[in-house]
Amino acid sequence: VSERVPGELMAAEIAEQPDVWRRVLAESGAELDEVAARIRARAPRFVLFVARGTSDNAALYAKYLVEIGLGLPCGLVSPSTMTGYGAVPDLRDVLLIGVSQSGGSPDLVHTVRVAGQQGALTLAVTNDPGSPLAAAAQLHLDVRAGVERAVAATKSYTAQLLTLYLLVGRLCDNGSAAEAAAALPALGERLLAEDTRLAAEAMRYRFAQRLVCTARGYSYPTANEAALKLMETGYLSAQSFSGADLMHGPLAVVDAALPVIVVAAAGVGGDSMRAVLPTLRERGADVFCVGTEEAVAAGTGGLVLPGGVPEPLSPLLEILPLQLLARHLAVARGGDPDAPRGLRKVTETT
Amino acid sequence: VSERVPGELMAAEIAEQPDVWRRVLAESGAELDEVAARIRARAPRFVLFVARGTSDNAALYAKYLVEIGLGLPCGLVSPSTMTGYGAVPDLRDVLLIGVSQSGGSPDLVHTVRVAGQQGALTLAVTNDPGSPLAAAAQLHLDVRAGVERAVAATKSYTAQLLTLYLLVGRLCDNGSAAEAAAALPALGERLLAEDTRLAAEAMRYRFAQRLVCTARGYSYPTANEAALKLMETGYLSAQSFSGADLMHGPLAVVDAALPVIVVAAAGVGGDSMRAVLPTLRERGADVFCVGTEEAVAAGTGGLVLPGGVPEPLSPLLEILPLQLLARHLAVARGGDPDAPRGLRKVTETT
Repeated sequence: VSERVPGELMAAEIAEQPDVWRRVLAESGAELDEVAARIRARAPRFVLFVARGTSDNAALYAKYLVEIGLGLPCGLVSPSTMTGYGAVPDLRDVLLIGVSQSGGSPDLVHTVRVAGQQGALTLAVTNDPGSPLAAAAQLHLDVRAGVERAVAATKSYTAQLLTLYLLVGRLCDNGSAAEAAAALPALGERLLAEDTRLAAEAMRYRFAQRLVCTARGYSYPTANEAALKLMETGYLSAQSFSGADLMHGPLAVVDAALPVIVVAAAGVGGDSMRAVLPTLRERGADVFCVGTEEAVAAGTGGLVLPGGVPEPLSPLLEILPLQLLARHLAVARGGDPDAPRGLRKVTETT
Repeated sequence: VSERVPGELMAAEIAEQPDVWRRVLAESGAELDEVAARIRARAPRFVLFVARGTSDNAALYAKYLVEIGLGLPCGLVSPSTMTGYGAVPDLRDVLLIGVSQSGGSPDLVHTVRVAGQQGALTLAVTNDPGSPLAAAAQLHLDVRAGVERAVAATKSYTAQLLTLYLLVGRLCDNGSAAEAAAALPALGERLLAEDTRLAAEAMRYRFAQRLVCTARGYSYPTANEAALKLMETGYLSAQSFSGADLMHGPLAVVDAALPVIVVAAAGVGGDSMRAVLPTLRERGADVFCVGTEEAVAAGTGGLVLPGGVPEPLSPLLEILPLQLLARHLAVARGGDPDAPRGLRKVTETT
């Protein structure tokens, strides 16, 4: 076996993402049409998601799509209510969507199974059509990310985002949704070309023990996912808050010694960060901003996102520089983001 | 004006809690009966909560009560979907509950108003019956905590927990719910008598910059709220994870240099932390456990909770030592938990 360079798997999987998106766009159409038709036939009135870790951030993203685009109330299930407390809720008229890269965590499988028995229409969104979660659900969508080997999920995350975006687009009768997504792969390649710059930026955080990520709206899951990557690969205590929640207490933590990463793309979510950026600067915070030119100028540094996609698609692009940043930082700190300490690829919780 | 000692307001409000609970138990009955009857008459099929900060932790607690006790699907609304993105979801058959100490944040008021227009039955749970949120909702419950002056919320939090517990108890036809709560004030006093011990424990964290709180089930909101108190008063980067979510990535952050606070009360939630405690110890973590004798023994230190209440009431007790810990730590680090840097009592977000 040839020696592996730390982080090489994660680097390769980050770089693969534009091709993964091309594959999803080219191959998922029929499956999405079929699943959307089945969902429509049941006319769900509430949507629930169940997920863990990175997939939970994809579920939160989809929650915004459902609440805003589909106009349905939506919730994220706490799996322990069904696995531990034995809750048997009335789930008629509910669509329950389990999101998981591996489709292997027992608590998600149990939740999807019980939900089906309790009257819900169940859908599994996984990277493995042969997984227990796919088998437990009535419907399945394959996110087509290909085998993911690095413990830190990257390509499966954006493949989940894209698959969920295309599904909700179909459910909203938004014909232009898929069309808009066609611009993603080329824009993703442009952002990935900033790898050298992100490697240099990562050095600024080499000695940081903690960090705050913040964003609002569709980009809030990006802040969560960036924090999770920084935790699991670089071992930073990286916290994530919606820009509004940050103001309700956690702001007290922010000072000149605490780095902040702000995501503020073009659109409603980014606009609502305009009030947050000056507050952070007043507190002396170092603010690295991934977003519009205006937002980056309001920080102390950052990376301007290319235009060209509607706001709901921006999260696929925003996370790319932050994945690169996390990988470089982890390697600089002596870690191996392909196999972080204490973690395995498939986490089994009950 | 006499000089104020840092943290004296917070100390007084922490100490008031058993009396606040006595007041809620003695005076809220008729209001709770009336609100429960109105909710029952509408037979909601889905429950949504909207809240920020400490009140969001109370909402998460109530989400467990609703999912487990009431058997209804439940979600936490992202306010920006309605305030920023202008979502107008179909909320027929939905009960939407806004939770807020002040009842003054514009985004919550807007969300409750829109929800009412979209067909939801709306309930405000506040500490001020004259607040805009109380006026915007169709129903109101006063949590009767009395005026709260410290910026860090304490007595309003447990008053929210108790009020929501009593409401769901009525909706479940669980006649023994109110009865069980009668034991709380005396048990709370026993825990508050540990103040000197908690002051000593707090010194162990004096130089910590970061910390992890973790729990599962009904106690998960306790971990969130403990982390929030440590952030807003002591300026620690305190993270909170459900015991299961911790295993899905964030565990990598934990090592011997990172203090961990585990909440593991008697019951399903605490039992499911049995798998987490040894994993934390294997990583060399310092684990302060608030919970059963068995759980405390599995940590490196801690405080044993008194028995005597059913698991859903345990969160009212668990948070008391952690409020005391946060206050002492904040004062030791030179802060003033009554008026943390950068925060005001009423946070207005839109």
